[in-house]
Amino acid sequence: MTMIQLYGSPLSGNTHKVRMALAFLGLPWDERLTDAAARRSDSFAALTPMRQIPLFVDGAFTLRDSQAILAFLAARHRPGDWDGAAPEERGEIAVWLSHAANEIANGPATLRLARKFDVPIAEDHAAAITARILPVVEAHLERRDWLVGDRLTIADLAASPYLALVEDAGIDAAAWPAIHAWTHRIAALPDFPAMPGWPAERVAIEGAA
Amino acid sequence: MTMIQLYGSPLSGNTHKVRMALAFLGLPWDERLTDAAARRSDSFAALTPMRQIPLFVDGAFTLRDSQAILAFLAARHRPGDWDGAAPEERGEIAVWLSHAANEIANGPATLRLARKFDVPIAEDHAAAITARILPVVEAHLERRDWLVGDRLTIADLAASPYLALVEDAGIDAAAWPAIHAWTHRIAALPDFPAMPGWPAERVAIEGAA
Repeated sequence: MTMIQLYGSPLSGNTHKVRMALAFLGLPWDERLTDAAARRSDSFAALTPMRQIPLFVDGAFTLRDSQAILAFLAARHRPGDWDGAAPEERGEIAVWLSHAANEIANGPATLRLARKFDVPIAEDHAAAITARILPVVEAHLERRDWLVGDRLTIADLAASPYLALVEDAGIDAAAWPAIHAWTHRIAALPDFPAMPGWPAERVAIEGAA
Repeated sequence: MTMIQLYGSPLSGNTHKVRMALAFLGLPWDERLTDAAARRSDSFAALTPMRQIPLFVDGAFTLRDSQAILAFLAARHRPGDWDGAAPEERGEIAVWLSHAANEIANGPATLRLARKFDVPIAEDHAAAITARILPVVEAHLERRDWLVGDRLTIADLAASPYLALVEDAGIDAAAWPAIHAWTHRIAALPDFPAMPGWPAERVAIEGAA
């Protein structure tokens, strides 16, 4: 039996989506550090034409794109639960996979690249997208604990990292209390893998003052 | 029984993704013309916070995002076929839903907005994304007829419109022959709804010279 290989990097929120899924599923994996130089290599391009992390490899099966890897893991290990039960839930989960792939990637995740990692990109464009998506997520989470249904799904795994890491992007997390509470809720789940910059509170122990 | 309502517009490729799905499924729908002014209205924002088309309404169920609507329709009407059989296929289809939501939306679809509809946007950024995604799709389709598996899936429905409409974006379709052949393949399917700008050849009639 082969060990799952996850090409990624410690500070990549996209990699963390998959890390969370694997940890919550109790699956062991071997993480392959893939920095910018490694991504430019021909050997990496031979594995994945977009040269993006994360890349998931399990024996002969290779899959790119963090949302897609989550969809695969859900279908394999938590079908009808993590990826939705009824068709309506599948559709609602897919809304958040699209937001993760587009608005969250091109908004707060891109702002974080500019502000934390000094990647030269158009901050104005990323800031405008951020300003459009954050209020929509905040309003949605004001009325519920999880993005879809009453449990964790791949919608939460896909959408949460770059919304948990907003301080890295120069955004005041306190201005978005429902989002902030939700990212803490995820961080409080058993087996949550720690991520630098993802705020997690010490949970009050029952009976303690 | 209620009639499906599709809020969209005739020249919207995102709307056309859903139009194709409904037509191929043989489902009747009522199309509600939703132009830019309508999208700015408070009544539309009350239906969908991102103010985007297409918007799918069936009785009390409302769903935004073209990829998500396809995921819903597949789960409801073609489960295990349009949305993938094995977990691996589900993952591979999800790769193309992400590309449709991100690179294709922000690349060729955005270039088309700029060049056909004179929307003032950063063309350079959209051109750079287009230059990154088109060779990946072209290389993928050189070896196969459909994006995933040996049949139409929602990957094809989600990814094809803005790749069929590249001439509107000022891109020479002849430079991408595998993509061009695939968009013709889709247009040749029974019940394909015509779309202005989507090239479709007259199919040679058997026996005719």
